[in-house]
Amino acid sequence: MTGNADTDSMVTLSLAEAQSLSQRVLEHHGLSAADAAAVSRTIVAGQRDDCQSHGLYRLLVCAHTLRSGKVVTDAVPNITSPAPAVVRADARGGYAQPAFEAALPLFVDKARTHGLAAMALTDCVHFSALWPEVEAVVAHGLVVLCCTPSHAWVAPAGGTKPLFGTNPLAFGWPRPGDTPFVFDFATSGVARGEIELHRRAGKTLGEGWAIGSDGQPTTDAEAALAGAMLTFGGHKGSALSLMIELIAGPLIGDMTSAESMAFDDGAGASPRGGVLFLALDPAGFLGAAAAEHLQRAEQLFDAITGMGARLPSQRRYAARARTAVEGMKVPKGLYEDVLALLK
Amino acid sequence: MTGNADTDSMVTLSLAEAQSLSQRVLEHHGLSAADAAAVSRTIVAGQRDDCQSHGLYRLLVCAHTLRSGKVVTDAVPNITSPAPAVVRADARGGYAQPAFEAALPLFVDKARTHGLAAMALTDCVHFSALWPEVEAVVAHGLVVLCCTPSHAWVAPAGGTKPLFGTNPLAFGWPRPGDTPFVFDFATSGVARGEIELHRRAGKTLGEGWAIGSDGQPTTDAEAALAGAMLTFGGHKGSALSLMIELIAGPLIGDMTSAESMAFDDGAGASPRGGVLFLALDPAGFLGAAAAEHLQRAEQLFDAITGMGARLPSQRRYAARARTAVEGMKVPKGLYEDVLALLK
Repeated sequence: MTGNADTDSMVTLSLAEAQSLSQRVLEHHGLSAADAAAVSRTIVAGQRDDCQSHGLYRLLVCAHTLRSGKVVTDAVPNITSPAPAVVRADARGGYAQPAFEAALPLFVDKARTHGLAAMALTDCVHFSALWPEVEAVVAHGLVVLCCTPSHAWVAPAGGTKPLFGTNPLAFGWPRPGDTPFVFDFATSGVARGEIELHRRAGKTLGEGWAIGSDGQPTTDAEAALAGAMLTFGGHKGSALSLMIELIAGPLIGDMTSAESMAFDDGAGASPRGGVLFLALDPAGFLGAAAAEHLQRAEQLFDAITGMGARLPSQRRYAARARTAVEGMKVPKGLYEDVLALLK
Repeated sequence: MTGNADTDSMVTLSLAEAQSLSQRVLEHHGLSAADAAAVSRTIVAGQRDDCQSHGLYRLLVCAHTLRSGKVVTDAVPNITSPAPAVVRADARGGYAQPAFEAALPLFVDKARTHGLAAMALTDCVHFSALWPEVEAVVAHGLVVLCCTPSHAWVAPAGGTKPLFGTNPLAFGWPRPGDTPFVFDFATSGVARGEIELHRRAGKTLGEGWAIGSDGQPTTDAEAALAGAMLTFGGHKGSALSLMIELIAGPLIGDMTSAESMAFDDGAGASPRGGVLFLALDPAGFLGAAAAEHLQRAEQLFDAITGMGARLPSQRRYAARARTAVEGMKVPKGLYEDVLALLK
């Protein structure tokens, strides 16, 4: 590691340095070399795109999760096709990334052959960050939808107790000659980590973020952590979150957020369960006219940026371009915490 | 018509009476008998489920739309399959319902054969009420996702001008031995009609519903109608709305909300464009284990209702059970307006 502390206590790492550091930490905690490489690519992608909660910080979570014994560290994914347009990538209790990478070529092939395809990534330990996988699918010119339950931290609209996960929904759309349009958002109002950060800082939560264990609205972080978070967008966000529980849970034979929480049994490990991907091939719908209609979609993006509004993926791509040149800036304290994992 | 005015100026109609009234009105405005029957089934379903804006009121909208010349009144749908798991139901400028009904058997068959399927319902005039069609698909034991653009009335998050439609998203999940779980919501914060109702009543809009033509927040209904509505859920709702523009617009070779608005050219007719359906077969993902996992999903529904929270579809089913016994209550003024359409 050749990280250099700069004036404001940041350490600068290249992508290769971060990948190597992550690899060493994950292997040190018992993960196989191949799995460590795949998981590290996601972690480095998070840091590269300036998504701090899914960057090197995530190594602390991975180390804890690996120590908890909740990950099969040498799992060999099992890739099957239970129906002509469906791929099942059974991670067999390992991290999501190796099974995803192993199944991607078949998934892409099936989407192209049938016009669309589904991939059920099952029995995996996952980060709930979906945009790296969405980008990997959209790179093949496919439109992608992706979602996953997590741990039961979020109450349904009108409810009083946690039942849903933060249940992210991600989407990718290929843009000719440009970076794809990708969004990836939690259906909870705010990220779980946001509540934690407010607790540590002794700060009051925003209105509508959470309820206490009595089911009443609260702006107290401790009360919220003992109670439940709320979804974004009221009953509509709650309906979406329930949809995600269903289609990336029972539909693919995998756990709901409540079941993942029960499996965790207080260990505080990353969620275990399934991720559902849908890929739609523009050529399957439109044949040779696909290029013309993809070009027509550009008018939507142009209209949005023409109003001065931002596309969801723009901040990530800007960070990516910046870190490719300048390297990735990591808080010195975090860097030292990660190095300490090697002891 | 044997409608009886009751004490509070409501007229009570049976389903058969409403179907017959709707049929007569639509045929009187030039729609073919077969198309009038299909459209009337949706209108009666709206009234039956106590969704007033998609009930008999909709006949006023249909009559206006038919008079505007924006509907092909004797369209013969063209059903094709551009890829093995994709159905294209080209309505050829007619109402959505006849093309949907004509293509449904092939769509169901493809979902069962391939594990999932897509149906692109294109070049249709539609109501943006998706739950009747979602229920028709879910009745075959399939999981359904459905969405459509409409007219450009809604600004993207951070934007200043209308670009998106009210862009509803609907979902259906089969429940063994019970009515299916179905939601259908606009990705706009409120329905377009809600703004209209506030304008007529001279009432102030809620905060966050709309912006004026200057791009600034407004609670004035006139200013909002000249400006733009906003999506639900801030930038997340806006991202969803854009996704719907893309996948039920250019992906299926059909109009965006802005293009539908341009086609309308001030006529004030119903939107013209496409609707995307995705159907996923639990048996395609799970084989013989499907029944067991569908049963497991029931724990989610039980947990929600056990907290005293409501499932999105419950109000509709309660209305349906009530109107089946008591008939449908229609405001006398509306009933007279509908009868006047026959003159």
